[in-house]
Amino acid sequence: MIGVGIVGLGYWGPNLLRNFAEAPGAQVRGACDLAAGRLAAASARYPRLRTTCDFAALVADPEIDAVAIATPVSTHFELAMAALRAGKHVLVEKPLAASSGDAARLRDEAARRRLVLMVDHTFVYTGAVRKIAALVSAGELGDLYYYDSVRVNLGLFQHDVNVIWDLAVHDLSIMDHVIPMRPRAVSATGMSHVAGGHENIAYLTLFFDTHLIAHIHVNWLAPVKIRRTLIGGSQRMIVYDDLEPSEKIKVYDKGITLNSHPDSVYQMLVGYRAGDMWAPQLDGAEALKTEVAHFLDCIGRQAAPLTDAAGGLRIVALVEAASKSMASRGRPVELDEA
Amino acid sequence: MIGVGIVGLGYWGPNLLRNFAEAPGAQVRGACDLAAGRLAAASARYPRLRTTCDFAALVADPEIDAVAIATPVSTHFELAMAALRAGKHVLVEKPLAASSGDAARLRDEAARRRLVLMVDHTFVYTGAVRKIAALVSAGELGDLYYYDSVRVNLGLFQHDVNVIWDLAVHDLSIMDHVIPMRPRAVSATGMSHVAGGHENIAYLTLFFDTHLIAHIHVNWLAPVKIRRTLIGGSQRMIVYDDLEPSEKIKVYDKGITLNSHPDSVYQMLVGYRAGDMWAPQLDGAEALKTEVAHFLDCIGRQAAPLTDAAGGLRIVALVEAASKSMASRGRPVELDEA
Amino acid sequence: MIGVGIVGLGYWGPNLLRNFAEAPGAQVRGACDLAAGRLAAASARYPRLRTTCDFAALVADPEIDAVAIATPVSTHFELAMAALRAGKHVLVEKPLAASSGDAARLRDEAARRRLVLMVDHTFVYTGAVRKIAALVSAGELGDLYYYDSVRVNLGLFQHDVNVIWDLAVHDLSIMDHVIPMRPRAVSATGMSHVAGGHENIAYLTLFFDTHLIAHIHVNWLAPVKIRRTLIGGSQRMIVYDDLEPSEKIKVYDKGITLNSHPDSVYQMLVGYRAGDMWAPQLDGAEALKTEVAHFLDCIGRQAAPLTDAAGGLRIVALVEAASKSMASRGRPVELDEA
Amino acid sequence: MIGVGIVGLGYWGPNLLRNFAEAPGAQVRGACDLAAGRLAAASARYPRLRTTCDFAALVADPEIDAVAIATPVSTHFELAMAALRAGKHVLVEKPLAASSGDAARLRDEAARRRLVLMVDHTFVYTGAVRKIAALVSAGELGDLYYYDSVRVNLGLFQHDVNVIWDLAVHDLSIMDHVIPMRPRAVSATGMSHVAGGHENIAYLTLFFDTHLIAHIHVNWLAPVKIRRTLIGGSQRMIVYDDLEPSEKIKVYDKGITLNSHPDSVYQMLVGYRAGDMWAPQLDGAEALKTEVAHFLDCIGRQAAPLTDAAGGLRIVALVEAASKSMASRGRPVELDEA
Repeated sequence: MIGVGIVGLGYWGPNLLRNFAEAPGAQVRGACDLAAGRLAAASARYPRLRTTCDFAALVADPEIDAVAIATPVSTHFELAMAALRAGKHVLVEKPLAASSGDAARLRDEAARRRLVLMVDHTFVYTGAVRKIAALVSAGELGDLYYYDSVRVNLGLFQHDVNVIWDLAVHDLSIMDHVIPMRPRAVSATGMSHVAGGHENIAYLTLFFDTHLIAHIHVNWLAPVKIRRTLIGGSQRMIVYDDLEPSEKIKVYDKGITLNSHPDSVYQMLVGYRAGDMWAPQLDGAEALKTEVAHFLDCIGRQAAPLTDAAGGLRIVALVEAASKSMASRGRPVELDEA
Repeated sequence: MIGVGIVGLGYWGPNLLRNFAEAPGAQVRGACDLAAGRLAAASARYPRLRTTCDFAALVADPEIDAVAIATPVSTHFELAMAALRAGKHVLVEKPLAASSGDAARLRDEAARRRLVLMVDHTFVYTGAVRKIAALVSAGELGDLYYYDSVRVNLGLFQHDVNVIWDLAVHDLSIMDHVIPMRPRAVSATGMSHVAGGHENIAYLTLFFDTHLIAHIHVNWLAPVKIRRTLIGGSQRMIVYDDLEPSEKIKVYDKGITLNSHPDSVYQMLVGYRAGDMWAPQLDGAEALKTEVAHFLDCIGRQAAPLTDAAGGLRIVALVEAASKSMASRGRPVELDEA
Repeated sequence: MIGVGIVGLGYWGPNLLRNFAEAPGAQVRGACDLAAGRLAAASARYPRLRTTCDFAALVADPEIDAVAIATPVSTHFELAMAALRAGKHVLVEKPLAASSGDAARLRDEAARRRLVLMVDHTFVYTGAVRKIAALVSAGELGDLYYYDSVRVNLGLFQHDVNVIWDLAVHDLSIMDHVIPMRPRAVSATGMSHVAGGHENIAYLTLFFDTHLIAHIHVNWLAPVKIRRTLIGGSQRMIVYDDLEPSEKIKVYDKGITLNSHPDSVYQMLVGYRAGDMWAPQLDGAEALKTEVAHFLDCIGRQAAPLTDAAGGLRIVALVEAASKSMASRGRPVELDEA
Repeated sequence: MIGVGIVGLGYWGPNLLRNFAEAPGAQVRGACDLAAGRLAAASARYPRLRTTCDFAALVADPEIDAVAIATPVSTHFELAMAALRAGKHVLVEKPLAASSGDAARLRDEAARRRLVLMVDHTFVYTGAVRKIAALVSAGELGDLYYYDSVRVNLGLFQHDVNVIWDLAVHDLSIMDHVIPMRPRAVSATGMSHVAGGHENIAYLTLFFDTHLIAHIHVNWLAPVKIRRTLIGGSQRMIVYDDLEPSEKIKVYDKGITLNSHPDSVYQMLVGYRAGDMWAPQLDGAEALKTEVAHFLDCIGRQAAPLTDAAGGLRIVALVEAASKSMASRGRPVELDEA
């Protein structure tokens, strides 16, 4: 039985609390928040839960083997580092840290102590993304041509970070899981419409060593909600619409065919191929339930999680590079080898 | 009665022929194409039509006052220039010419001869775009925040130009008509997935002197057809979906409100405002019919058309700049004052 | 402060419990269920809640002024009657009772004792239905022509009742609230696809004294979920799609116009009128919260609720008549004056 | 080469003219209409076409082997009978005749003379309906449970017939082709909202010898256009949405499973089965082109067409029975064995 402590009971923390409380093999032994009201609400629901507003006390509890952190991003580094140093496994809400330097230090600390450090990139654990990953890795799409995602709605403007840190992180984590290559450069553009605020609309293009191109459009100020990703391959193409209640993924057996031009070795003849569309049945389990089970399993097996610190660091580094490109109106920024 | 000659009877030319044939105040006196079969088909439908495969003969016909050119873009300059020099008014399919230099020369020639030179940017004459233009110019949207267009489908790969020349020209012409400012710089990215071919997917960001940002996504290789534009303003926002059969334009009375922060002069408090949605009834007339009537009217009044050569030049210059930026992975390219 | 007891903690009861627990002016003093596990779960969440598996004990509690009953429909009559006889106000889940005779007896008992007896027809308290009712009663639609509802999905087959008792009751309660006339006859058809089971697909037509016609299609065995109602009037028409996340109601300013035929006094000339569409902003409050507040308010004011026992009886009588018509393949059944 | 004459050049006739003109193996030798303007338009397009306003002359033309009739339904019997008596094969627009008596007489006359008499039930020749028919006849759906169609929009009110004659005939012809059983009884309801007019909204239920139930909803006065058919079977279910541009047919591998109840021989246990959805690629050929080729082929082979006079008669008889039921508010009307 793995003892678990929950840190932060704001928007997301109660979901972590509920899923750990219901997970076989785990027992939630403590919860921590600065707001007494949140602790009281958690206690009312889980009467045996020990609550505290003192993070140090929670992290010192020897019955707690792992902590799940759902606090503002600016606190991730300090809290996760303290937990690791206290010998706890850590699940931390996305993004891993507020800078790639901090993210790297967390990764190294966890590696040194042989502790599991996992980032809560929830979308990776949805049935939809797992199905896409399975299709891509089985070669069903052929060569990857493009990955295009739109994630917009009238959303909460955040004061401390731009919209890339908030929304694009979801897309970057999905891509990091689904695409078997790493981006080499990024060009990003964006704009703030609030005086003194961070960019609330942004467009990112990622370049790879191949002909794959990836693009992400995020926007806090759209009149409609859109969550749609197009993935183009040489064999098949996918439309992933996360707002569809039942057929979130549609696989299109259509595309182009390329043949050598009879008259020219330099030119290809483009043909067009139409075919069926297919929407596979998806695993409907709650993503966070799957994720929590994976975290506990990794602790038990001393294994690296799907969304490990190395991936969390890659994503933070990408966000930093994109923000830098955005400040110079799209000038491409190279991404270092990790 | 204005005598009209049609040049080019491929995909688009027959639509021009039909609309000029039905337009009050015009009489189609001749049509020209290199393919005898196309001429025969036109003759069968319009028995009194004089057809020829000799452009020089058509342009020399003194009964022809105006010519409509619907030929490959590489021929636009030569044909339009010859027609202007023969004293004809000219309607030329988009884009105006294959280079901004050629476009400028056509503009200057028409100006010198006081002839109408109009570009067939058809979308500008749709009921939907005219309604958007009316709403924007009446100030209904407030300050313009962003213009975001997606125009993708499994489309015909063109051998001589990239997808910007083919598809983004539509968006650029709509923007040129709707937005009362001119872009100052462009950052574009894209990729070709056909060896030796031009880019078949592209992303353009346009920067203005204000906080307005515009973005266009065009793709010849998408599994689904999307024709959707989001326009954000400080007061209202528009979703324009050209594939909707009846409610192409939806006006959302929602957005954010900005108030001074009580504790800080540097920070704004963002509030959220929800309201009704409204889909105005649109003029359902065929855009090309409206456009042809406008062309004839401009000839009669010696007036500049809505989609004049200056606008056609601006769009060609934008496409050139975007293609240049795309070649350097998004590096921003400044746009000169016209 | 009104003391409340909750009876039945299966699917719907916990929602009643939560809403009464959060309602100003109410205090939940007891809850009753036959399953000890459900009572334990409720206690864990509401530690001060007194729970019992003895309905008689709950109803005898002098601190309880009102009970909310969410048990199987076959038990509604017995439990509600016992509660009324104990002097409690009663909110009972839809439908009011399993027969119109029982429903009438409950109505009479409540009237005799001057107690509030309200049926939990939740949809009546949604922002969408309240907006439709407001539009209709303000005359915005003109004369009512038709009311057409489709409510289908792959739903839970019920063993004890047909699909009309389960799904059509929602539509009948919405119509009872929205339409200012009472149906005079019903024709219904349907079919069972499970040996020995009740009809799982049904179609109801309701006739009125006017030219209004109403039709309801309910189906437990549909591959897709549809929740759509069309309401036609002489002036405007409404589409109410309950699955739309934000624009559930669309008001169309279109229809036909009727003029006398110049040649015949017996014939009308039909014209067609197109206009704008408008989606009003709706109150997004949880319907059950609004409903609970209304129940408490009616108790305080000794007023009749919107969804009173008389309406509950009308709906049960309609379902009985429809089931009778369905057994004879659509033969119309007259509805008695209540 | 089969010589063809076209009768009636109103809304639909020009489509027949164009398709016969382009069909291999046919030559359009004449066209007939009472309006000189329509004849002139046809002549302009097809200069060699002989036109006349005298139907008798056209039918007397020995070079004409077959006539296609696209005139008002009240004239179908007289014109088709005259053509048959002149020894011509006949393709007649739907419905076959204005009464089942007339339809039967046409059927008998054609049989006696061994002439092809085909009804222009165009939908039967679409790729979508042909795919549905193939799926049903291959047993892919299992036992048929229900067929439910909605065909509504703001449509042209017809003066001489009710909406069943106009719109439901499409559904009845599709069902006649797709479903391998014949309906035994019909219950229909409807209403007219125009004084002195025929019903503009109608609902039909068809009963069969099995547990299959069919329902059709047609409406000339709906604010939105819907063309959607649900087909439920024991193994799979189909959604056919004719307004979808590309995926008109979706096949759902979901439904219920039935097992004997362990405690009762009279009761079944219902289980639920979810699975993939699949949208087969459809033949996109113009339905009328396929239909015209089939008509010509049947003439050549002396074969009975898919949409023969017997089917045309069945559909007219159904419409008559439905109209009769509608007049008595849904009272079921038995259908005689043909």
